[in-house]
Amino acid sequence: MPDDVVTMDKIVSLCKRRGIIFPASEIYGGIANTYDYGHYGVLLKRNVVDAWWQAMIGDRDDIVALDSAIIQHPRTWEASGHLAGFTDPLVDCRTCGQRFRADHLDAEHDVRCPRKPSVLPGQGPDCNLTEAREFNLMFETTIGPVQEAGSTVYLRPETAQGIFLDFKTVLGFARRKPPFGIAQVGKSFRNEITPGNFIFRTLEFEQMEMEYFVPPDDAHRWYLHWLEARMDWYERLGIRGDHLRLRAHEQDELSHYSSATSDVEYLYPIGWQELEGIANRGNFDLTQHAQHSGEKLEYFDQQSGERYVPHVIEPAAGVGRATLALLCDAYDEDQIGGEARTVLKLHPQMAPVKVAVLPLVRKDAQPELAHEVRNLLRRRMQTEYDEGGSIGRRYRRQDEIGTPWCVTIDHQSLEDRTVTVRDRDTLTQDRVAIDELPDVLAGKLEAPWISPKLLVED
Amino acid sequence: MPDDVVTMDKIVSLCKRRGIIFPASEIYGGIANTYDYGHYGVLLKRNVVDAWWQAMIGDRDDIVALDSAIIQHPRTWEASGHLAGFTDPLVDCRTCGQRFRADHLDAEHDVRCPRKPSVLPGQGPDCNLTEAREFNLMFETTIGPVQEAGSTVYLRPETAQGIFLDFKTVLGFARRKPPFGIAQVGKSFRNEITPGNFIFRTLEFEQMEMEYFVPPDDAHRWYLHWLEARMDWYERLGIRGDHLRLRAHEQDELSHYSSATSDVEYLYPIGWQELEGIANRGNFDLTQHAQHSGEKLEYFDQQSGERYVPHVIEPAAGVGRATLALLCDAYDEDQIGGEARTVLKLHPQMAPVKVAVLPLVRKDAQPELAHEVRNLLRRRMQTEYDEGGSIGRRYRRQDEIGTPWCVTIDHQSLEDRTVTVRDRDTLTQDRVAIDELPDVLAGKLEAPWISPKLLVED
Repeated sequence: MPDDVVTMDKIVSLCKRRGIIFPASEIYGGIANTYDYGHYGVLLKRNVVDAWWQAMIGDRDDIVALDSAIIQHPRTWEASGHLAGFTDPLVDCRTCGQRFRADHLDAEHDVRCPRKPSVLPGQGPDCNLTEAREFNLMFETTIGPVQEAGSTVYLRPETAQGIFLDFKTVLGFARRKPPFGIAQVGKSFRNEITPGNFIFRTLEFEQMEMEYFVPPDDAHRWYLHWLEARMDWYERLGIRGDHLRLRAHEQDELSHYSSATSDVEYLYPIGWQELEGIANRGNFDLTQHAQHSGEKLEYFDQQSGERYVPHVIEPAAGVGRATLALLCDAYDEDQIGGEARTVLKLHPQMAPVKVAVLPLVRKDAQPELAHEVRNLLRRRMQTEYDEGGSIGRRYRRQDEIGTPWCVTIDHQSLEDRTVTVRDRDTLTQDRVAIDELPDVLAGKLEAPWISPKLLVED
Repeated sequence: MPDDVVTMDKIVSLCKRRGIIFPASEIYGGIANTYDYGHYGVLLKRNVVDAWWQAMIGDRDDIVALDSAIIQHPRTWEASGHLAGFTDPLVDCRTCGQRFRADHLDAEHDVRCPRKPSVLPGQGPDCNLTEAREFNLMFETTIGPVQEAGSTVYLRPETAQGIFLDFKTVLGFARRKPPFGIAQVGKSFRNEITPGNFIFRTLEFEQMEMEYFVPPDDAHRWYLHWLEARMDWYERLGIRGDHLRLRAHEQDELSHYSSATSDVEYLYPIGWQELEGIANRGNFDLTQHAQHSGEKLEYFDQQSGERYVPHVIEPAAGVGRATLALLCDAYDEDQIGGEARTVLKLHPQMAPVKVAVLPLVRKDAQPELAHEVRNLLRRRMQTEYDEGGSIGRRYRRQDEIGTPWCVTIDHQSLEDRTVTVRDRDTLTQDRVAIDELPDVLAGKLEAPWISPKLLVED
């Protein structure tokens, strides 16, 4: 791992210490691979989601939003292939009684089984592992008030299928013709055994998926467009270019229906891993749902008289993975005046709190003026007020959650109604008139980063 | 029902026609009481959620955000009482084979059973109903990769319990002392038989819940504070005062742990119904979780040396119910120049689209200028471009989704770079210079409504 990649331990520790993200149900001993987001985590995650919506429906004219249900009709998953094929191969160890993914067996079993490695499969009489069996990853539940009378349904393992189900309805009301997209953000669920890399893979997770419907002949061109547009988006969030890469799937990695897939990968503490997948799914999903439902899921172009099943390009991102990438990428440790500092160098637009308002001392009418300043700012951006502890300590607290600016109210503020604005990264302190402060800070926030490099007309 | 209350049929029809909200899984015949939100529905719902966050954490200093998992440790529901007591009494009809809520039996059975009313319970030999049995409303599923080896878990029936589980963690990192609140927005699930009133009650639904922790002696005062603050919020969303009321629960309606509960009720097409519940929950939840987990869930005041289990005031709102109330309240039909118009008179801040940009004709460089104007506006507010059909028809389309302003590019626009701004409600058209347009419209959007009537210091 390169030196400039933070360890996962440091990220986990910071997230716990500041209540950004922490294990769920901790008072009952926790629940496997499930996390709760605290105050700053919620704010950070909302910024990620807002930036995604801005890129999908704010900056473009060709995409509409959708929010489909988590529990859909069970035939959805017959048609999509998830019921038959969305499985992991698992083996049981008769020694330790634990279950492992067959494809991750060596590393995991090594750690968790007390008699490993002597029980490696096929290595003599100690071998105590069952054959691999396939287990479906969908959570199953029953709709209707009682099990025997109800019907089995599934928690969606991806948001994408809800988009395909509603393709015809959206086509009807949205007055769209291909190329156009349908975007959605929401939770999905996968009943997975995971190696426990913090929020990298969790049982429930929030997806940001967009299905872009195009004329079949244009599919490859749009696939290339989305590779570029999505890489551009992560760079605009402030993620270092040398920690991002595009990796095309090999032929043997591709789903049977996909003609091309690439991952946007980020250099996480656990190595290069998928941040987002961008797939050319062909017409597989619409064709499957048309067959299973008996509905025509196609586009008829009245002008050309052409009728076709659109092909689909799917950029599928994870809110948790993007959040984790931002945290890892922004994490830094430096020294100020001989003292160690932990700082999140988040892009200001991504920072949970934009500005902290701090009275230098808790007297001399400074707190009152600080509240007045805070009230000026709070409708323009997320603010925080803090009067507890030395000013240096309060700066450190803000640095640690990535707050780009600290506004300090001091003696002079009471005299001339100016404040100092401290910059998290440069540590410079500029004096600004209170009356001008909201516009000055709003101006800093409206950085050019947010404009996409690609024009939609491309 | 008063004349000024729209029928549910009209709301359902508009929502379907414009793709705002429609039944989920329609191509497979639908799934009971489950709906998907389309483009304008997502935008409207996001505005509701944003306004709630603004009221909870933007306008106040005493509340922090949380996003806890949907699937928590199963002991959560033992402690909360949901496992034992969150049930509906159901009866089966042996004639029609359907299941009914015992407490809604007459009305529902009347409609759906072919032999009703001759099979009313206790009315002679035709009676064909089973005794009522209690059925739990929680959706059950299994965690771990296979049913026999996994453990039973539940989809949360309310977001509130996740807040109580994290009380201690939040207290630790957030440097808070009572009174303070923890707020969260997320999906909950209830396996209910419902009478099918559109999105009023659905199997999965989004909640906006806040638990406000206070010293025991202050509980009643804060209960009254939240009654007023929440009523104020709905009024600020633009909902008519005479369609809103506060209704205190009678003693026999109260949960056993609640000393007082009031509902904010809205006059829906189905009558006065709960829009939000505000409960004084006492210390029931923290005490239960402390007992079941063995953790101390209390507050120790270092200054006074006092140690206590905080009491909790809970304002619990539903995103779907607030969205439905906004749609019903805003719906209007009028006549313009002898033609019927359907219009959603939504508050501009709530409207899915703030401004539509329309070239009068699709030639003479008007579309190009319209795109330029749209690009000026799109980073400030949600915009839409439309060039299809007559200008009157395009105005109607925007009226129907509640767009407060339509900007029209005409011949004069090409000459002097001015446009007309049409107001949805007054129908006036003002000419505005393109350069000034973003600030003019942003100024209209920043209405005083958004400021809370109550000061937090109250």
